[in-house]
Amino acid sequence: MRNIAKEVGELIRSQRKARGISQEALAAKSKIDRSYMGRIERGEVNVTLKALWDIAASMDISTKLLIPD
Amino acid sequence: MRNIAKEVGELIRSQRKARGISQEALAAKSKIDRSYMGRIERGEVNVTLKALWDIAASMDISTKLLIPD
Repeated sequence: MRNIAKEVGELIRSQRKARGISQEALAAKSKIDRSYMGRIERGEVNVTLKALWDIAASMDISTKLLIPD
Repeated sequence: MRNIAKEVGELIRSQRKARGISQEALAAKSKIDRSYMGRIERGEVNVTLKALWDIAASMDISTKLLIPD
């Protein structure tokens, strides 16, 4: 069974790293608590649409890029 | 300011109607409470990634189709 939360977390991490943004900076820009951002990236939480939208917007990318195929 | 929840709800509704599926049938297939599904379609709740994934899977479409550009 696929672990969608984990896959999304990995997509966020790879997009973030591709832009040389620290987890802390991404959390601040997305107005998400830093430790919660860590949990999102590790796939430990069932992230909401709004949080995903804000994370994508703060990296200036489409939210679709953070959704696995 | 965009209302992402409302936009997603409209995308779910249009995909559902395009397939001739009732809201009740979609809720049952997605294992989501029927009234909660109504609130999702009306954009009244901040839907989670898992719920969105299950809704897309139950219509056999990519979750990306339920994410606004």
